[in-house]
Amino acid sequence: METALIAACSAAARGEVPVGAVVLDGNGVPLAIAGNEVEQTHDASAHAELLAMKRAAQARGTTRLEDCTLVVTLEPCPMCAAAAVHFRVRLVVFGAYDPKGGGITHGPRVIDHPACMRRPEIIGGVRETEAAGLLRSFFRALRGAG
Amino acid sequence: METALIAACSAAARGEVPVGAVVLDGNGVPLAIAGNEVEQTHDASAHAELLAMKRAAQARGTTRLEDCTLVVTLEPCPMCAAAAVHFRVRLVVFGAYDPKGGGITHGPRVIDHPACMRRPEIIGGVRETEAAGLLRSFFRALRGAG
Repeated sequence: METALIAACSAAARGEVPVGAVVLDGNGVPLAIAGNEVEQTHDASAHAELLAMKRAAQARGTTRLEDCTLVVTLEPCPMCAAAAVHFRVRLVVFGAYDPKGGGITHGPRVIDHPACMRRPEIIGGVRETEAAGLLRSFFRALRGAG
Repeated sequence: METALIAACSAAARGEVPVGAVVLDGNGVPLAIAGNEVEQTHDASAHAELLAMKRAAQARGTTRLEDCTLVVTLEPCPMCAAAAVHFRVRLVVFGAYDPKGGGITHGPRVIDHPACMRRPEIIGGVRETEAAGLLRSFFRALRGAG
């Protein structure tokens, strides 16, 4: 989570919503690290965790991340939660809960849905205070600048 | 839908699941056309409709496709349905219904969920027989070759 938090800080420095993610292989070795890139790439789907999964899969030359853990500072949205299922991630660890935009423990809870065929394990709330604090500071500064 | 069906055929010819998509601007002019690229790019998220939305947004230099229509041969999965919300697509038109993997009229129905803040309009079942037929032929051939 330390690495994901650093990626989130780095995203904020680029003017992106501060969310960071890392994909670790079965031995805990980082395969890919990413922060949000929505603004800089004009890509509304360029969320940190989706980028980290894509890059980890590309590094491996396979679409499957079956032994891997996705660590992300914010509860994944429905898009990213469903992507973790497509990439067959083994475990998703997230920091802050997202009652408004989350898709795992909130909203459509796509992984819990009976139609979801491969469920990653989920651990939420890891270093929640720091992850949520980053987001709060960012949006407070944004409102201040507005 | 004709263009999307051609993109789906082209995907099949590359060994990809035959799904094709096109994004049209408010005047009906195509901004981006894509077929599935999951296998060739080792990217489990490289679904036709997600690629088409990313490319359309990049072509415009904005993350928003507020006046746009996404036309896709198969009901979008939860990931792509949620991505259509992020890209603020105005209308989603799809061909075949997908009771197993769909995320709009099946599964977690992410766009219908109360947590979904911006709902595109949805029209399903357009040229459904041809779109479903393409998928059936592809999977029949795959089983035959297995």
